[in-house]
Amino acid sequence: MIDDRVRVGLLGCGTVGAALVTLVGEQAESVAQRTGARLEITRIAVRDPGKERGAQIPKDLLTGDAAGVVGAADVDVVVELMGGIDPARKLLLGALEAGKPVVTANKELLAAHGGELLAAADRAGVEVEMEAAVAGAIPLVRPLRASLVGERIERIMGIVNGTTNYVLCRMTDDGMAYADALAEAQALGFAEANPAADVEGHDAAAKAAILAGLAFGCDVSADDVYREGITALRPVDVDFARRMGYAVKLLAVCERAAPDGAQRGGDGRARDGGPVISVRVHPAMVPLAHPLAAVRGAHNAVFVEGAASGELMFYGLGAGGRPTASAVLGDLVAAARSVLARRHATDGDGGAPVRAGLAGTHAGRPRARIRPMGELQTQYYLNIDVTDRPGVLASVAEVFGTHQVSIRSMEQDGPQGGVAHLIFLTHTAREDGVQATIEGLSHLDVVQHVGAMVRVAGGEDLP
Amino acid sequence: MIDDRVRVGLLGCGTVGAALVTLVGEQAESVAQRTGARLEITRIAVRDPGKERGAQIPKDLLTGDAAGVVGAADVDVVVELMGGIDPARKLLLGALEAGKPVVTANKELLAAHGGELLAAADRAGVEVEMEAAVAGAIPLVRPLRASLVGERIERIMGIVNGTTNYVLCRMTDDGMAYADALAEAQALGFAEANPAADVEGHDAAAKAAILAGLAFGCDVSADDVYREGITALRPVDVDFARRMGYAVKLLAVCERAAPDGAQRGGDGRARDGGPVISVRVHPAMVPLAHPLAAVRGAHNAVFVEGAASGELMFYGLGAGGRPTASAVLGDLVAAARSVLARRHATDGDGGAPVRAGLAGTHAGRPRARIRPMGELQTQYYLNIDVTDRPGVLASVAEVFGTHQVSIRSMEQDGPQGGVAHLIFLTHTAREDGVQATIEGLSHLDVVQHVGAMVRVAGGEDLP
Repeated sequence: MIDDRVRVGLLGCGTVGAALVTLVGEQAESVAQRTGARLEITRIAVRDPGKERGAQIPKDLLTGDAAGVVGAADVDVVVELMGGIDPARKLLLGALEAGKPVVTANKELLAAHGGELLAAADRAGVEVEMEAAVAGAIPLVRPLRASLVGERIERIMGIVNGTTNYVLCRMTDDGMAYADALAEAQALGFAEANPAADVEGHDAAAKAAILAGLAFGCDVSADDVYREGITALRPVDVDFARRMGYAVKLLAVCERAAPDGAQRGGDGRARDGGPVISVRVHPAMVPLAHPLAAVRGAHNAVFVEGAASGELMFYGLGAGGRPTASAVLGDLVAAARSVLARRHATDGDGGAPVRAGLAGTHAGRPRARIRPMGELQTQYYLNIDVTDRPGVLASVAEVFGTHQVSIRSMEQDGPQGGVAHLIFLTHTAREDGVQATIEGLSHLDVVQHVGAMVRVAGGEDLP
Repeated sequence: MIDDRVRVGLLGCGTVGAALVTLVGEQAESVAQRTGARLEITRIAVRDPGKERGAQIPKDLLTGDAAGVVGAADVDVVVELMGGIDPARKLLLGALEAGKPVVTANKELLAAHGGELLAAADRAGVEVEMEAAVAGAIPLVRPLRASLVGERIERIMGIVNGTTNYVLCRMTDDGMAYADALAEAQALGFAEANPAADVEGHDAAAKAAILAGLAFGCDVSADDVYREGITALRPVDVDFARRMGYAVKLLAVCERAAPDGAQRGGDGRARDGGPVISVRVHPAMVPLAHPLAAVRGAHNAVFVEGAASGELMFYGLGAGGRPTASAVLGDLVAAARSVLARRHATDGDGGAPVRAGLAGTHAGRPRARIRPMGELQTQYYLNIDVTDRPGVLASVAEVFGTHQVSIRSMEQDGPQGGVAHLIFLTHTAREDGVQATIEGLSHLDVVQHVGAMVRVAGGEDLP
């Protein structure tokens, strides 16, 4: 008779960890009935074992020795919810080398060292499960790794940070200033006291790197991701966007680059192997009719565009203890099933290692080749303050023209106190041309201030 | 060296089958790189092997002998795209008994004999993959079976039939009559010449049965599903719904029944094991702010409500050759990976059978216990034509009151030619009370016609 218990070592027991302990308690019986795997949390590593915790955390499981949990004979699967790069990286590498599958919600670690972890997992023939690292409760990583593994993904475009989405919704719906909306989000507990990771796009960039790696089968790190936050946006920007039929959202975009230049084949793949992709995080104008425009508050939504599948969208809660723990539990069950599969296979004969689940999916991922941001082609929104005098528009328009940026529409607000506010929407243009235009405008005497530049999501391709 | 080829026998080669052959040709190399499984279609069973087909179908693979394909030594996985109950059922049972995983898009078969197929798969330790049977290209079945296997699903509510959604959108947006919208859908190829399977809700009911079985871990057949189509709806109904802030959609709803009656425990589970659930397909009024209200044309979208995950939505194309083939290919890769896992495990030693992938997920599913439709509690829309004379409303209202149905709002249209059109929206009421009200109203002298009754999606719980 094969033992059906799968023993879990938990690293970290904050909001998500505590919710996971509760959830395993509630669902273990149902999971055992459905999958044959009997989950049992046997050890929990925390920084301070003496700290007072809720009644649902069994005190006798707590320890300060994380490495001991990873190495323990009564731990079959390691769940890492401690966050940060070190010591999480070493602990997970140790677990994988010991042949133990790992479940992690650590986006920072995965965006920095995902390739290393996946390679170690491949060598050991076990899995790194990571559903909770992107888009919280939403099943997105597994569909990308399993359901869509035969699909040629063309583009992923998503709202993956709830804090910035909440702030942008308040600015859009209620005309709030950025700072006020952020202060409110902080008061409500949606934003950290130090909001930089969210509002400057670092959190979204880490998630974009993970999604790009999964979608395009290559190694992408957070450093590869072009990143702009939402701090420069003013109510006037979201207001004009709305009047033009757009909602402003902080988007993570991962897409295959259009063939551009001799070094690439017609399939968007660099001739030496890795696909050429664009990975970026920035505020973007999303047409109001697009499903992403309707995503409210702290929700996340991710649009996936496949060559055969067409457009898919995954929507749900992107954060929170219980929703995130729900995603961790799904991963944990998958890891437990593969533990049992290996246990069955090697029962009594010590046969060859069994690759079950998703192990081996990422063998030998090439490094991604990142298209320079200057080659991006899309539409652009731009606003500038100019001195109100005859001939201004002509000199401004000349700068656009010099850099091959064609103006689709212009609106003038004011003049007030001698200053006119000009809002431009361009036709599809190249990023480097637009950047040169901004530079050129800033040198014109009549231009008093160059305000926000916002890209239009999906250029002119969107509905 | 273990052979990495996984040989595929295809049963049926219509629109989806032909698209699958093309897609495997396009993606086999990429799939092999990512998963180590080299897909190869070795045999294709069709009714008429002599029929002219596109150049992408290799003629030498075609045969009229489906059973021969299932039994062939050079077939490791069987993909069934022929549809219908027989002979598909026997062929798939044969494949499973021979230890071959199967992939099927056959909702009719799964809704009638899903339990039998899953039990056979469990005995053989292989998988029945069925992503394409529900909601076309959208990854939904795998997330339910894997990602959410540890989640307590409370409710699934979805638009799973594109034809009826197209017709309802045309009625809502353009005021078209049902018959005209249907004729247009037929002319465009969205609806069959015989549209009964779609417009009477049979197609959606089969999908509801499959989803309910997966979500609640029990056996549900299409016959268990309460079913109403869209044929009785008139433009006036969708028009009034919109004015009250709702879109009319044909919804498939699967939910845990609230404890009601002595035979159930507080967890909504019948005391003898199977959960008590409600599974139904009918037109429903969805609040315009709800994401499902915005689903246009032939798209599908499925809302999943989990106890820990919160609300999730999956959205995409519900039909079409290439989108559906994309879902089949995802399943095929999963089946191929488990074939390889077993091949690795038994290499040279003929060890114990390996359960990889989703095999064994459905061991011993209990029969679902279906809550009688009369016990449903929600809000109701009702319209009736009455003779325009004093005292009519009093006698109509008395019938509602007799059956404990409380009226939330009433609007009168007309009178015109002596006939007034009354539109009622009730507070949350019991279905049997509403049915008795309709029966009672139809016996009143002053009531000339009882029109459509439409339930409000999610009662009063929705946003």
